[in-house]
Amino acid sequence: MPDVSDQSIATPGKPAVVLLSGGLDSATILAIANAQGYVCHALSFDYGQRHRAEIAAAAKVAEQLGVASHRWINIDLRSLGGSALTDAIDVPKDRHEEAMTHGIPVTYVPARNTIFLSYALAVAEVIHSTDLFIGVNAVDYSGYPDCRGEYIRAFETMSNLATKAGVEGQHLNVHTPLIDLPKTGIIEQGLKLGVDYSLTHSCYDPIDDGKPCAHCDACLLRIRAFEKVGQRDPAMVRWYGDKPL
Amino acid sequence: MPDVSDQSIATPGKPAVVLLSGGLDSATILAIANAQGYVCHALSFDYGQRHRAEIAAAAKVAEQLGVASHRWINIDLRSLGGSALTDAIDVPKDRHEEAMTHGIPVTYVPARNTIFLSYALAVAEVIHSTDLFIGVNAVDYSGYPDCRGEYIRAFETMSNLATKAGVEGQHLNVHTPLIDLPKTGIIEQGLKLGVDYSLTHSCYDPIDDGKPCAHCDACLLRIRAFEKVGQRDPAMVRWYGDKPL
Repeated sequence: MPDVSDQSIATPGKPAVVLLSGGLDSATILAIANAQGYVCHALSFDYGQRHRAEIAAAAKVAEQLGVASHRWINIDLRSLGGSALTDAIDVPKDRHEEAMTHGIPVTYVPARNTIFLSYALAVAEVIHSTDLFIGVNAVDYSGYPDCRGEYIRAFETMSNLATKAGVEGQHLNVHTPLIDLPKTGIIEQGLKLGVDYSLTHSCYDPIDDGKPCAHCDACLLRIRAFEKVGQRDPAMVRWYGDKPL
Repeated sequence: MPDVSDQSIATPGKPAVVLLSGGLDSATILAIANAQGYVCHALSFDYGQRHRAEIAAAAKVAEQLGVASHRWINIDLRSLGGSALTDAIDVPKDRHEEAMTHGIPVTYVPARNTIFLSYALAVAEVIHSTDLFIGVNAVDYSGYPDCRGEYIRAFETMSNLATKAGVEGQHLNVHTPLIDLPKTGIIEQGLKLGVDYSLTHSCYDPIDDGKPCAHCDACLLRIRAFEKVGQRDPAMVRWYGDKPL
């Protein structure tokens, strides 16, 4: 498993734009980018997602880990339609891992990562940053086309042709420190870096007050991964205490 | 000059997403896409641009030329800052063409075309379209990195890796029928296809009620191009009548 200390260390004080959803993965990349010496500018989106508890979580995670700024962008993906995360399509529950990782899931939001990265690119241009961080992961989300390394590399190539910085000879980098890690590896890195995972929110279909459902793909992936590293998921402990899920 | 009749004709009824700003170029690409047999779904943005008269123009152009649908997306580029089109930076006036086409202009909006095309990609996924049209032009806007052919090709490559359609073996195409045309060529094509250019709005810094200033780069480019094809710019005639500009 790659370790943070193995990764190239940024020039101290170099600004980076970090996409922060408030989930487990994005909290971990913020901790990694901070540990690498970047001055992190977090960027979060309100896109009419069902799991609006993410929004509160992003603010808490940014506060816990520390950011130089935190921008919020309202975007209306709901009006575009086409996903269980924004439409009235049922979120699948209690699936086995094999079912989760085959085909493109109904929770896929059309062009979501492309839209998010495009905004991150705009912020990067404005704050004179050449480093974007996104918590995509090809292991657990192999069904999402826009979580794969080849997609990210193509976005990076496009970015360098799209922007002032790229044209003027700087190189824009899209960092994906989690891309090849299993969920257990992500959690282990984050725990080492002091991420408080009880603050993070991953659930696709939370109950009323933001309580994770403990049955959708996103909940099950993290519950199982925490079990494998010998812990109960701190977010589940926060909401359910010792009760069985 | 390439002619519309030389271009590959689409399967009748094939849906396309057309980025429609309400300017001269985007009106022309809508006419071209219609002429090629696409069923056009227009997509426009309200991004806090100074030239809000564009917004009214887009609606009028869509009505004149005909579209299957017209989506509006509110996006907040203003909060990102960094451009004379959204910030309190002076729009340059009365420049010679050489000055317009050297370097990256202050009217460049960070990552704008990337954000616009990303939304177009999302709409394309939702309506099962594999064809996007954008009115970029490398001749008159050589200073904008995201108006160049190599940028568009990189966006297309990325799109095919980002989306369900791409992964499932369809090919997403980003059409740029104006990319190598001088403004005069664009106008000649549009006139042949019946575009009413008096409805279009290009001005970066319009007066009160939406009247074009007749002095910014965008106004001057079209005024001069119409002169070269032997006409007065119909939009200037509409607003100024026979008065000198």
